[in-house]
Amino acid sequence: MLPSWRPGSSRESVVRFLESSTEIPPEQRLAVFDNDGTLWCEKPEFTQMLFYLDQLRAAVSEQPDLGSRAEYAALLEGDRSAIATMGLERLALALVELFEGREPAFFEQRVREWFESTVHPDRRTPYEHMVYQPMLELIDELRSRDFTVCIVTGGGTEFVRAVSQDLYGVAPERVVGTLVGYEMRRRDAGEPYLVRVATTVLDANEGAAKVSNIQTALGRRPIVAGGNSAGDREMLEYAAAADGPSLALLIDHDDAEREYAYESKAGTFEAAEPITDTGRRLGWTVVSMADDWSRVYPE
Amino acid sequence: MLPSWRPGSSRESVVRFLESSTEIPPEQRLAVFDNDGTLWCEKPEFTQMLFYLDQLRAAVSEQPDLGSRAEYAALLEGDRSAIATMGLERLALALVELFEGREPAFFEQRVREWFESTVHPDRRTPYEHMVYQPMLELIDELRSRDFTVCIVTGGGTEFVRAVSQDLYGVAPERVVGTLVGYEMRRRDAGEPYLVRVATTVLDANEGAAKVSNIQTALGRRPIVAGGNSAGDREMLEYAAAADGPSLALLIDHDDAEREYAYESKAGTFEAAEPITDTGRRLGWTVVSMADDWSRVYPE
Repeated sequence: MLPSWRPGSSRESVVRFLESSTEIPPEQRLAVFDNDGTLWCEKPEFTQMLFYLDQLRAAVSEQPDLGSRAEYAALLEGDRSAIATMGLERLALALVELFEGREPAFFEQRVREWFESTVHPDRRTPYEHMVYQPMLELIDELRSRDFTVCIVTGGGTEFVRAVSQDLYGVAPERVVGTLVGYEMRRRDAGEPYLVRVATTVLDANEGAAKVSNIQTALGRRPIVAGGNSAGDREMLEYAAAADGPSLALLIDHDDAEREYAYESKAGTFEAAEPITDTGRRLGWTVVSMADDWSRVYPE
Repeated sequence: MLPSWRPGSSRESVVRFLESSTEIPPEQRLAVFDNDGTLWCEKPEFTQMLFYLDQLRAAVSEQPDLGSRAEYAALLEGDRSAIATMGLERLALALVELFEGREPAFFEQRVREWFESTVHPDRRTPYEHMVYQPMLELIDELRSRDFTVCIVTGGGTEFVRAVSQDLYGVAPERVVGTLVGYEMRRRDAGEPYLVRVATTVLDANEGAAKVSNIQTALGRRPIVAGGNSAGDREMLEYAAAADGPSLALLIDHDDAEREYAYESKAGTFEAAEPITDTGRRLGWTVVSMADDWSRVYPE
């Protein structure tokens, strides 16, 4: 069990929880995991951001006028000062607007093509291999105990859904993220179809929104929550507050050699204390990537 | 297979689809069903409305002042003229407000208790037996072919989720309905919890909204859709427009003897033509409850 988890207190606490989970009524066995920095690598830049920047470059090469839009110019030039002034929300909205009016299948196809054709800028391995092997093992153990495993991400719902089945075995309806809107239209012959509408993307699925959206989208309280950033705090607290056994797992990115060493922050979040301090204070299982994992990525 | 479906063109079309479904890639095997009038009986009144009226009576008996609120007074007195003037949206919102500030588990418990203690006003059998046996058999056949089966209802998401696992084997994350909002709060010791906020319930999951919400909540296009009312039209058209085999199933309530005979309309919808005419015109499988089903309810 959990071959990539080194012996120690983190592994022990995970195993203890797994063993106790047989006491929990099956309908309460819901596990939710953040994605960026929890299931896959989020450095040197959010995967989704790299995808959108590639899409932006492709769009501008076909339609050069686009490049003069202030948000796109700042992003393409890597103009840190302009980027900071505009803020992540405005830039994210501008990027999502690249797919305004497109059908869901078009976007999904683009994401899959990107994953198949893109290597990680530092590791030079395909992006689909940038998932954490120990977390895949934990997901397997949970599933073998009849847990429903879901992803609750600050990233775009559709972006993660496009690859969640292949990477994690998680079906699209079990991915809860930041949503774009859809509008139904009709073709000339009357068949309905959907197009993307960017505007709703501003309600980021971070912090307390993760807790509300878990209820709205999944309809029950999780008893396992895994995360790594300030944007996951409320979700982990919520799982930890369940009656009976629960597991709040926080990944500490302290492995400069095999991964990255950094203090995790969700996109637009400023936390009062480092989230690892919060986790230790609240009694969560804080996982040291450097010490607790014998392997980070799959073979 | 399908023992409660009588031989005939409806059954043939269902069986033909089931047999062809092995050609469909497994990740496309998504089936969505409306609930009221499609999986369970919706007459003489929506089940959810009867639940809320019972909750209203209980609330007024504890707190008589409540009864003077115009919406509640009209509902308690069955004042058709006042009810028509106020409209379903205003009344629904007033009813949902009975649970304003309550935790999700409280509401869920109330729904379950109601189902356990309430009999259908005409048939005098428990409400949990008011589901359509032939549809349960169809759901079983779909599941045995690796379909993901979801409910896409105009009713309250939480109302249906409270019983969907028991009645249909459908997990809460696979129920898409009309949503209430949630707000995260903290107890004195800091643990987060959620309370219901009624206001968002006005975005009813009917018509084109069902199509958008299928994408938002489930992330893929269904190839099977079942419904019975004008509010299901777009969802059935959407499934029918899929590439490859699909099944758009419309229940015709033409069985005054065993169930009810009526033209189906979604809550606030006025359709240009009876939905059964639409269904025949568009080539859907229109199921006559009287002719196509040998049995309506489970034994």
